[in-house]
Amino acid sequence: MQQNADPLENLADQFARFPGVGRKSAMRMAYQVMAMPNDQAMELAKAIECAKTQLRRCRICQDYTGGEVCKICASQKRDRSVICVVEKPRDVKSIERTHEFNGLYHVLHGLISPIDGVTADQLCVKELLARLNDTVKEVIMATSPTVEGEATAMYLAKLIKPLGIKTTRLAYGLPVGSSLEFADETTLYRALQGRGEL
Amino acid sequence: MQQNADPLENLADQFARFPGVGRKSAMRMAYQVMAMPNDQAMELAKAIECAKTQLRRCRICQDYTGGEVCKICASQKRDRSVICVVEKPRDVKSIERTHEFNGLYHVLHGLISPIDGVTADQLCVKELLARLNDTVKEVIMATSPTVEGEATAMYLAKLIKPLGIKTTRLAYGLPVGSSLEFADETTLYRALQGRGEL
Repeated sequence: MQQNADPLENLADQFARFPGVGRKSAMRMAYQVMAMPNDQAMELAKAIECAKTQLRRCRICQDYTGGEVCKICASQKRDRSVICVVEKPRDVKSIERTHEFNGLYHVLHGLISPIDGVTADQLCVKELLARLNDTVKEVIMATSPTVEGEATAMYLAKLIKPLGIKTTRLAYGLPVGSSLEFADETTLYRALQGRGEL
Repeated sequence: MQQNADPLENLADQFARFPGVGRKSAMRMAYQVMAMPNDQAMELAKAIECAKTQLRRCRICQDYTGGEVCKICASQKRDRSVICVVEKPRDVKSIERTHEFNGLYHVLHGLISPIDGVTADQLCVKELLARLNDTVKEVIMATSPTVEGEATAMYLAKLIKPLGIKTTRLAYGLPVGSSLEFADETTLYRALQGRGEL
């Protein structure tokens, strides 16, 4: 098996490196590559190379960009007094899709996680602190409502509040369209705590 | 968005070509590539290229191989009187894992499917017929128990039987470890029909 299966097994090994892709799915993907027309597979290989070589982190917000500074940071239409702190570049896209936020972003590229050995200095924290000039009036913590997300938000708030900048957090509550029946107690508790007037 | 998101969107487009990978998963994978160390991403790109350039179809059974003929077809230990016909290369691996089959394989690279416009001459049928010499005593149809798998097995049986070669089919029945409760009627009917003595 070694000899003939090698490039295929190797390809599966590479796919298995994606978080959430198990060995079986990785093998399936490897076979799917083999079943693709040659030019399609080469386009995929090329797209990986291009994304990695052409994209870098925005000098200001650390999101991915093709240039020196990303489009949002460069835009004159964005409100420079609010910075929304997120865990990863994907979160920027998610928030942009709401069309509700017109400020700037800051991507941490991770969350503080003692269990995984991730400390604050492995995240883009100093880049955030360097941005906090007089223009900035509010920093919104938009990290996930998980233990790591909480810990990171608390840690940053402790650093930012003393600078006299308002530090806020995304609201907790029931997901829209969900049923009360399926909400866990903690969410329900938070939804109650955060109840608003009608 | 166009300018800075382009290589990332393009990469997601490429991933979205995998069957079963939706737009959202594809985008997640693209971000995962961006989060990979550079050398890891390049290894993935290279593995795709290598698999596509180094592997080809075995001249005999049409499975993927690094050489002219695959290891199974080249082996002197395999029983050359039985050929097991499968839809795709992955199925060869599945059957090999049972350690119960010592014959040869033949990979069709697809199934007859009028709905998808796949006819018999798009499959490796003539390569199979070309192999049916006097040594071959049995051809096992190991296609899936689906409409397409059935149709393909029937079609091939019609071509092979007149040559005086035994044509068999994988057994239908209850999956081992499953509960009768969850078996659909057709499977149960087939399991009854194929019942064996204890």
